Amino acid sequence: MSNPEIEAKLAPLRAAVLEQGNLVRELKVKGAPEIDVKRAVAELKARKKVLEDRELELTPSVVTFDRSKMEDLLKRRFFYDQSFAIYGGITGQYDFGPMGCALKSNILSLWRQFFVLEEQMLEVDCSILTPEPVLKASGHVDRFADLMVKDVKTGECFRLDHLIKNALEKLSKEKTASAELKAECEDIVIKLDGMNKQEMSDVLAKYNIKSPLTGNDLTEPIEFNLMFATQIGPTGLVKGFLRPETAQGIFVNFKRLLEFNQGKLPFAVAQIGNSFRNEISPRSGLIRVREFTMAEIEHFCDPNQKNHPKFESIADTRLTLYSACNQMDGKSAQQISIGEAVRNNLVANETLGYYMTRIHQFLLTIGIKPECLRFRQHMNNEMAHYACDCWDAECLTSYGWVECVGCADRSAYDLGQHTQATGVRLVAEKRLPEPKTVEVSEIVPNKQALGKTFKKDAKTITDALSKLSINDVNDVEQTLKDKQEFILNLENGSEFKLTPEIISVKHSTKTVHVEDITPSVIEPSFGIGRIMYALLEQNFQCREGDEQRCYFTLPSVVAPLKCSILPLSNNAEFNPFIRQLSTALTKAELSHKVDDSSGSIGRRYARTDEIAIPFGITVDFDTLKEPHTVTLRDRDSLKQVRLGIDEVIDVVKNLSVGRVKWSQILEKYPVFDQQEATK
Amino acid sequence: MSNPEIEAKLAPLRAAVLEQGNLVRELKVKGAPEIDVKRAVAELKARKKVLEDRELELTPSVVTFDRSKMEDLLKRRFFYDQSFAIYGGITGQYDFGPMGCALKSNILSLWRQFFVLEEQMLEVDCSILTPEPVLKASGHVDRFADLMVKDVKTGECFRLDHLIKNALEKLSKEKTASAELKAECEDIVIKLDGMNKQEMSDVLAKYNIKSPLTGNDLTEPIEFNLMFATQIGPTGLVKGFLRPETAQGIFVNFKRLLEFNQGKLPFAVAQIGNSFRNEISPRSGLIRVREFTMAEIEHFCDPNQKNHPKFESIADTRLTLYSACNQMDGKSAQQISIGEAVRNNLVANETLGYYMTRIHQFLLTIGIKPECLRFRQHMNNEMAHYACDCWDAECLTSYGWVECVGCADRSAYDLGQHTQATGVRLVAEKRLPEPKTVEVSEIVPNKQALGKTFKKDAKTITDALSKLSINDVNDVEQTLKDKQEFILNLENGSEFKLTPEIISVKHSTKTVHVEDITPSVIEPSFGIGRIMYALLEQNFQCREGDEQRCYFTLPSVVAPLKCSILPLSNNAEFNPFIRQLSTALTKAELSHKVDDSSGSIGRRYARTDEIAIPFGITVDFDTLKEPHTVTLRDRDSLKQVRLGIDEVIDVVKNLSVGRVKWSQILEKYPVFDQQEATK
Repeated sequence: MSNPEIEAKLAPLRAAVLEQGNLVRELKVKGAPEIDVKRAVAELKARKKVLEDRELELTPSVVTFDRSKMEDLLKRRFFYDQSFAIYGGITGQYDFGPMGCALKSNILSLWRQFFVLEEQMLEVDCSILTPEPVLKASGHVDRFADLMVKDVKTGECFRLDHLIKNALEKLSKEKTASAELKAECEDIVIKLDGMNKQEMSDVLAKYNIKSPLTGNDLTEPIEFNLMFATQIGPTGLVKGFLRPETAQGIFVNFKRLLEFNQGKLPFAVAQIGNSFRNEISPRSGLIRVREFTMAEIEHFCDPNQKNHPKFESIADTRLTLYSACNQMDGKSAQQISIGEAVRNNLVANETLGYYMTRIHQFLLTIGIKPECLRFRQHMNNEMAHYACDCWDAECLTSYGWVECVGCADRSAYDLGQHTQATGVRLVAEKRLPEPKTVEVSEIVPNKQALGKTFKKDAKTITDALSKLSINDVNDVEQTLKDKQEFILNLENGSEFKLTPEIISVKHSTKTVHVEDITPSVIEPSFGIGRIMYALLEQNFQCREGDEQRCYFTLPSVVAPLKCSILPLSNNAEFNPFIRQLSTALTKAELSHKVDDSSGSIGRRYARTDEIAIPFGITVDFDTLKEPHTVTLRDRDSLKQVRLGIDEVIDVVKNLSVGRVKWSQILEKYPVFDQQEATK
Repeated sequence: MSNPEIEAKLAPLRAAVLEQGNLVRELKVKGAPEIDVKRAVAELKARKKVLEDRELELTPSVVTFDRSKMEDLLKRRFFYDQSFAIYGGITGQYDFGPMGCALKSNILSLWRQFFVLEEQMLEVDCSILTPEPVLKASGHVDRFADLMVKDVKTGECFRLDHLIKNALEKLSKEKTASAELKAECEDIVIKLDGMNKQEMSDVLAKYNIKSPLTGNDLTEPIEFNLMFATQIGPTGLVKGFLRPETAQGIFVNFKRLLEFNQGKLPFAVAQIGNSFRNEISPRSGLIRVREFTMAEIEHFCDPNQKNHPKFESIADTRLTLYSACNQMDGKSAQQISIGEAVRNNLVANETLGYYMTRIHQFLLTIGIKPECLRFRQHMNNEMAHYACDCWDAECLTSYGWVECVGCADRSAYDLGQHTQATGVRLVAEKRLPEPKTVEVSEIVPNKQALGKTFKKDAKTITDALSKLSINDVNDVEQTLKDKQEFILNLENGSEFKLTPEIISVKHSTKTVHVEDITPSVIEPSFGIGRIMYALLEQNFQCREGDEQRCYFTLPSVVAPLKCSILPLSNNAEFNPFIRQLSTALTKAELSHKVDDSSGSIGRRYARTDEIAIPFGITVDFDTLKEPHTVTLRDRDSLKQVRLGIDEVIDVVKNLSVGRVKWSQILEKYPVFDQQEATK
């Protein structure tokens, strides 16, 4: 894996990360003030970034990749392109053309087979439009925001971190910039990611940063919520949002799903669907968009039983793990079997490890390169507050390592939030190993005294008392004992003084066979657009010696079309054979394309290569003779064989679904050697 | 088909429709004022409705169907249910649970195979969020609205036609209502559909209709646009809508798609995706919702060549057509072969007829009953202004005949609108039978004179002149000749006086080989939710003699799960066989459910019937003996056979994809006769 020459270059950078990582650990152990820890972490991330950037600079595959060439091909053959282009287009929105749509649909269909079918998940399909209270409970209304500033005159908006980065980079490139200023700017740019609103505001002021477009003053930083808002129904009073993730639709249906699973844990629920984020200034193509397809899984399990029945079957799979610890130590990611990783507590539990492995298997199946895939663990400080362990499957692209699948243990956070917001208890019943006797404390009102004292409020008081938790009841008992009174405060602001004559606390015991538990949630969450982008980049190739002939090495299982049918020329005698093949491929459910346009066979092959068609059948003059034969060509090796027209459909079917390999076909059938060079 | 007793009851109603149909025809022939025609048409529709309602009342299947029983089952087994129910729910939004989601996904996957694969369509996947100008051009911003009124005090909104209907029905049920008033009310309710804003407003006033909830006054009718509005990007300045149909995404990509098809017509583009309509007061379950999945096809063809190469292959298929003519004559729908229908010009062209037939085949394949499916032609007055023929596939449900698939010839309307809005010419090139010489007229400016007279405006003028159409140029020539000057008005309001010294018109000829044509569009548009609802209703059954045991007779190709695996009891010796079967079914890509819960085998079968599982494998004590065998049960006939555990997977696979029929299985394997009665 590692190259001594490259490692020598990276050694000082690794040491710098390690030094800072140790400082962070030390500060945490000492219980240093939070602000000091945050500063040290920001510096740690900055040093990590320098190390990673340098590592990528030294990676040959990334260096030679020509992004604009690929993007040109994707646009020209309409894999995808900007939406509403004839109207000037909208940034951050893309339309998938026939090839992109077929690729996406094949990926999703394999995903369904890989996860929903094989793991017997419950798939659901929930609403996109979501009323405000749901997203208030999930935390999105309050916290799902980015910082931005506006041009005070034109109202133009800028994402704050991008703006500062661009302004300081420009500043440090000016001729008059001192070495000191340059260092200062670089330092800030590196630390931007960890800065809060006030710190960024200070940077704006210190360097007197203005609108890059007009030179006008800018507003103070504003928190801009990234959800698209709308009104549901005609009154304008029911506020709703387009969902920012599909997960919440699953959580709010938890009770129905548990019931569908006959009340038993664990079970997993899957959902494929679109989500929306109103990015301030989207860029980076498919990687940061306003509208995107996600495939999410919520695996509900007993918080104390996160083992997985199928774990043993995958325990030997080796993954590339980039642990939080390695990140702090300036080390590289390491290859390790998932069994060992769970045994060493590197990965928190078997279920999390099982899903990571299945994600790994899925990504390799669709064509992600193993050397361009790693699982990066979130460091303590970047993990959402509710998560207890989180690993991102990252794919290497020319944009660097891109998070494509998140895999988090979200604990009981979401179900707890919705329970709190609705009063509907989202819990499962767990059978106790043996029946248990529990103490029950309840408040018993003296109805007569209560009625006499509080008249019509008596019922309100009784209701409020009956809703108190066991801890509350114990508090009431203690207060009554200490002060001979208890003041009951209601939500509407009213207060009632209750004395021992009016209420008392009764204790009893009862036998229970089950207990209520709030399940933990393990969530693998796939960003389909990002996966597609990484897949296309990692499979983009140009023919040796002909840089203009580019193609995608997509595995046939996801390739948009499985086969092409090409008549050698426009000779009319070929037509019946073309029709026969097309009908037979359709019957075998193999998507294909007949290219009977003019142009040499070589040029037409090149066109099919551009859209990743893995196999090509050519009808030529030998086809006309009995026994009728055709040639079959393999996109990646460019090799061809000659075989009977009656056999070819089965061969293509078996190749497409991965039942046989091209090497086996080469052994079985005579190679066809004719040049395809004519361009 | 027809029953003389029923026909006798319907005869007077048919006569009443015919009488009015003839009146409408007569008014049209006479060129009567539009308002008179509209009135007569409203009366015609009213009479048609009376006829249709009566026909349905006399249809046995509709009479016996118990909707609430089915809805209870759909909710209980979570096919679908109201979204966000724990938050109180939102009307018009539904979440599909595991069974509904699997059914939907199977329907869509068959749709892809049936249309995209078999017809070699280009499938695309376009953005949901759509900027305003696109929907302005399509007509949705101006015209996609329903009438509503608001309670002046509370702001509560009511869809106007529903409000009037309910108010008048209530009024006519009052004890004091005279026979005259009752007749009047009934008459208005029947004609509501054809009334305009003013007419409805008059009804409100005449009957002094108030808010049904508060008795408060109501506002004048308001046109409420049914699109959900939002802002794209952070400035709040880019207005966007959630698309109300998927079609526009295809039209705006026409150029790219034509290019993908190498410039050739015809070609068809398909899209599956969600659309949104902010209904004022949604009801009728899945039939009228705010968020729904559509599958649309736009078939682009030469407006003068609407024949279809595969038409002959389906020409003998008999469809039930309810032509506009039959509707006006008070006749029933008629069975006719599509070949004959096109020959008689009943259906406008082969392509439209081909798609209607494919829609018919698709709906029958997924399980719509032939006797509950008809194609109803739009009458002239209900057709969108751009369409030249339109047939709706309607499915019979307890809500009456429901439009599930529209199939319209939209002519060149949409491409023309977007061309006009953007200046991008959405046309195809058509090779002329032979090259043609055309006259070219162009305005030639005298650059020197122009520059001298208009200075810096000279370029603006030249540009404006170069954009004139051939007709405009001829006008300029004539004006110059007549008045010795031509006044050029620009969009910004400026005016320039041009004389023959400054510009002249030059004529020449050139030879062209192609001409530009704006393709016609034929659009089959599937409402997936409505199809699902009709399918569930038409397949809902209860066991004879046990009204509590309900099930769905869904064909296995769309059934949510293909197979159940049931151990006869909880004997541990069954477990290895259960696991073996489950693994083998997964490998064969057959979705299935193991039900090892307690409960008699009969009760568990009933549970699998409720979720439409077509086949059930039972592991019993005979399974333990060699050779290992299991029983296989058919949901619809309740019959069982006994067969080898090694054979059963292939049998279920072949049954599921329709390669063999249950009757063949019954012939091949010994029937297993044990009672499943134990409930």
